[in-house]
Amino acid sequence: MSEMQPWGETLRLLVELAATAAFALSGLLEAARKRLDAVGVCVVAFLAAFGGGTLRDLLLDRRPFFWVQHVEVLWGVLGLCVLAMLFLRQPHFELTEKMIQWPDALGLGLFTATGVHLALIDQMPMLVAVMMGLTTGVFGGVLRDMVCNEVPTAFRDHKPYAVCAFAGGWVYVALWQMEAPGWSALLACVLVTAGLRAMALWRNWALPAWRV
Amino acid sequence: MSEMQPWGETLRLLVELAATAAFALSGLLEAARKRLDAVGVCVVAFLAAFGGGTLRDLLLDRRPFFWVQHVEVLWGVLGLCVLAMLFLRQPHFELTEKMIQWPDALGLGLFTATGVHLALIDQMPMLVAVMMGLTTGVFGGVLRDMVCNEVPTAFRDHKPYAVCAFAGGWVYVALWQMEAPGWSALLACVLVTAGLRAMALWRNWALPAWRV
Amino acid sequence: MSEMQPWGETLRLLVELAATAAFALSGLLEAARKRLDAVGVCVVAFLAAFGGGTLRDLLLDRRPFFWVQHVEVLWGVLGLCVLAMLFLRQPHFELTEKMIQWPDALGLGLFTATGVHLALIDQMPMLVAVMMGLTTGVFGGVLRDMVCNEVPTAFRDHKPYAVCAFAGGWVYVALWQMEAPGWSALLACVLVTAGLRAMALWRNWALPAWRV
Repeated sequence: MSEMQPWGETLRLLVELAATAAFALSGLLEAARKRLDAVGVCVVAFLAAFGGGTLRDLLLDRRPFFWVQHVEVLWGVLGLCVLAMLFLRQPHFELTEKMIQWPDALGLGLFTATGVHLALIDQMPMLVAVMMGLTTGVFGGVLRDMVCNEVPTAFRDHKPYAVCAFAGGWVYVALWQMEAPGWSALLACVLVTAGLRAMALWRNWALPAWRV
Repeated sequence: MSEMQPWGETLRLLVELAATAAFALSGLLEAARKRLDAVGVCVVAFLAAFGGGTLRDLLLDRRPFFWVQHVEVLWGVLGLCVLAMLFLRQPHFELTEKMIQWPDALGLGLFTATGVHLALIDQMPMLVAVMMGLTTGVFGGVLRDMVCNEVPTAFRDHKPYAVCAFAGGWVYVALWQMEAPGWSALLACVLVTAGLRAMALWRNWALPAWRV
Repeated sequence: MSEMQPWGETLRLLVELAATAAFALSGLLEAARKRLDAVGVCVVAFLAAFGGGTLRDLLLDRRPFFWVQHVEVLWGVLGLCVLAMLFLRQPHFELTEKMIQWPDALGLGLFTATGVHLALIDQMPMLVAVMMGLTTGVFGGVLRDMVCNEVPTAFRDHKPYAVCAFAGGWVYVALWQMEAPGWSALLACVLVTAGLRAMALWRNWALPAWRV
């Protein structure tokens, strides 16, 4: 197991990096569509990328934050914003929501797994752990939409998003309870979450409407 | 006094449970009216129910949160959401704002008392304690409205709401300063807050308008 | 140096007081324009005045908050709200955005310096320290706008605001790295931030638009 540990840590770090970039791009896209200025676009990108994990850390009282420990990620997102600013000005280049749909689905799975994992380490009850996973995965996007003065897409578009994270979170918890190795729980959670999300997008699954 | 303590604890717990249900329903109602999907309705219900207390605990740096210590309350609100989803689909059943007005007024009083109490225990200055009471009672609703992309009702409808909590909070602080028994301060705070709120609703009291 | 220390502390306190008043007035003004009731106006004024610093303290895990340690500032802002309520009702008196533009620019500089300073004391990396300065200076206004259901002005009006704080923050960090005396770093940060902001307002500088 001892030689597995650093590999697992590296994988988790890579996972967070990829997810962070996808989430930052989703913020960039929405901010640009709302005609924010360059500062607004950067801030919304940062909120989308780090908001969920930071909220989780605040709730779990974990310090230092991910982006304090790995400050190079902050520089990376800042660079991403500058690059996007240059590239998006090319008339023949267009960034669309479709392009980030798949990395976003993967990011949702990865962030959820991270959130559940950290909460379980802190000995949180199972439901709380799942909710921390959901918070990590979903609240970056929620903060992004709230700053842009929109009802969060995740709560309104009737497409399964948070529900996928909820299901994936329980998979992680179940495997943890069965004392399965950490990498298998991580993998299963990501596969279930991202898989359900991909199915939902592909088959146009819709959440039931609500009547009052 | 020693036999009073557990009774007081039980009462405080019951108080929080009743208030939590009323607040969750207010979130459910608003989310449904804004046509959110099932996930959105649940999240907004959770925010309305636990947002104020969680914000207070973040500010006071109290851990574990109420809903981590009593995780069954989370399950309860989740169950409430599922039940509401089933019942609200009945054509002859309608949940209106009027129906939760009174439990909400009681909840406002109870949450305020809890918030003031916890802040005083942490040796906060009096004004801060009152503000923590107000935060506990009012910010669940504020977060609910912010996520639903509305200016918070509490700040806009010219009906006394936070003001009642402010008055009730000072009553609690005053009785605490006089070293009155805890149950009397709790009771007085709830009665004043909920009483003022009830009067305001009944007599249509309005806050003064603001001119600039 | 020992006789400089209390003088520096007093200056920092005065700085925060002046900035707090300017920010509270900006909240008051926006809330009044959005036709909030008296409670809403007060809450938005408090959010604008204390939101940025409180968010910084939450992120840095600093306690007690500024407004707990100096509870008289809370009373001051409460008094300011009551005074404003009385004065703004005079027909021949009008509070405009122009009137608080300059104290707000000064406040931005002062808050930024405070935020960077506290983060550097906590041994945060340089970029994080600058972001904490930016958070302190800008997020009071962001929270104010979010509660008022607006896309934050700082992200949308194409006038340099957060960018000035960003520049000023780096000045503070640079002087700190060179082990310059604390008061010079504070002064330089305030001058650069407020100066850039003043130039931007005076010369109508605009941030580049963003195209997608």
